[in-house]
Amino acid sequence: MTPNVFRYTCRVTYAQCTVGNHIYYARYLDILEAARGEFFRALGMPLGLLQEQDTIFPVIGVELSYKSAARYDEVLTTEVWVSECGGVRVNFGCKILKDDGTLVLEGVTKHVCTTRDEKPKRLPKEISEKLGQKSN
Amino acid sequence: MTPNVFRYTCRVTYAQCTVGNHIYYARYLDILEAARGEFFRALGMPLGLLQEQDTIFPVIGVELSYKSAARYDEVLTTEVWVSECGGVRVNFGCKILKDDGTLVLEGVTKHVCTTRDEKPKRLPKEISEKLGQKSN
Amino acid sequence: MTPNVFRYTCRVTYAQCTVGNHIYYARYLDILEAARGEFFRALGMPLGLLQEQDTIFPVIGVELSYKSAARYDEVLTTEVWVSECGGVRVNFGCKILKDDGTLVLEGVTKHVCTTRDEKPKRLPKEISEKLGQKSN
Amino acid sequence: MTPNVFRYTCRVTYAQCTVGNHIYYARYLDILEAARGEFFRALGMPLGLLQEQDTIFPVIGVELSYKSAARYDEVLTTEVWVSECGGVRVNFGCKILKDDGTLVLEGVTKHVCTTRDEKPKRLPKEISEKLGQKSN
Repeated sequence: MTPNVFRYTCRVTYAQCTVGNHIYYARYLDILEAARGEFFRALGMPLGLLQEQDTIFPVIGVELSYKSAARYDEVLTTEVWVSECGGVRVNFGCKILKDDGTLVLEGVTKHVCTTRDEKPKRLPKEISEKLGQKSN
Repeated sequence: MTPNVFRYTCRVTYAQCTVGNHIYYARYLDILEAARGEFFRALGMPLGLLQEQDTIFPVIGVELSYKSAARYDEVLTTEVWVSECGGVRVNFGCKILKDDGTLVLEGVTKHVCTTRDEKPKRLPKEISEKLGQKSN
Repeated sequence: MTPNVFRYTCRVTYAQCTVGNHIYYARYLDILEAARGEFFRALGMPLGLLQEQDTIFPVIGVELSYKSAARYDEVLTTEVWVSECGGVRVNFGCKILKDDGTLVLEGVTKHVCTTRDEKPKRLPKEISEKLGQKSN
Repeated sequence: MTPNVFRYTCRVTYAQCTVGNHIYYARYLDILEAARGEFFRALGMPLGLLQEQDTIFPVIGVELSYKSAARYDEVLTTEVWVSECGGVRVNFGCKILKDDGTLVLEGVTKHVCTTRDEKPKRLPKEISEKLGQKSN
């Protein structure tokens, strides 16, 4: 089964770069968050709305491989998809690519479903269904 | 004479927010930089290209008034325009607005034109012309 | 009357720098916030404690002049002092200096005293007294 | 063999926090960078100096587990040590702990030794020796 891959595009700013003209390693996580936010919106459930409904997805782990440096003003496409989903957990696979196809970063971000008070809870059924996999 | 106002739109991310659910005061400067970058691109002279041609615009001053708090997931429109331009200097006026017209921030960022080695130089004529005002 | 000047020292990281090896203009505001936080702590009223007591100090304005570029690994001393204080308002003067005395930045950050719900309120007397000036 | 564990202490600022009052997941990477920088300094080879000598350590991977949320104004101690070192590679183990011993984060950051032009090179012998392990 091929997962539903969402694509998010952005352009590298000076705010994201560091000495030597490449994106600082932590700023990629900002980009991944923005991409996940647009992914949820595209699925019809903006994270801001879910938060009002007492559902948030704190990050419990990241595993990222930095493959090449992205530079100021380059256009980056972030691919994000559900790589695992079930119970109280959801993981997102991700890739960041340049316009010419160069792989910049790949990896996974791991999340737990909680209330706003950070108490773990099972993924609500309508969310796990929209994420494309059953939460058995 | 009415200046040419450029508009840049973005959506507030968790990366930009702080405790209490509003954008952290420094992150607005990241947004203003992104807006100026797109303004220069729209004028046909991307900052990355100007940098290759040994022209950069370091910030020498900011004067910003924070008028209301922007929240996670809100859509913000940044308006940016040339408010002063001449010699080695260029200033940009700016406003950030919510979708409903609420003013979030207004002010000015002040820049000096320099080489990449940070030596001040007169604004190249083709740049000051595109910025819409003479560099006498 | 000479105000009470508080000094906060930090070292420049890659996270704060951008292309060209200098601190990105927005990151100075992060440093100023850290310095103000330590200033309040030194006055015996950590901002975290004040926040629990329903008093916060959102920024309503900044006026900053960038005087010279700070580089990776340099040690910076931030000076911060109360420049105005009264009613619902408090302003902090600030300077950032290098070890050799070079002025990097100077200016003022303007704050309003509010509840956590962002409703303006008069500075509590014990706070305005510790800030060293009457809140008439 | 027990590795040499370096400890770096800092206090959580508003700049590092996001909605819900906890450190934003990307900001921990800023803290880890600051801790590695002080580690190298303590070993007698500040990264700024190594950079002048044409040796830098770009990140090629991170694996981090977020164990509990750190809040505004808490004091965090970051432990960092060399977990692997040899050839062109060096990995750092890391833990971030609260004052009461609560584990906030643990993981590894993976680095490659390169010239400033980002060409991989063997770890210079004096560096691998100071890092406490042979670079065979």
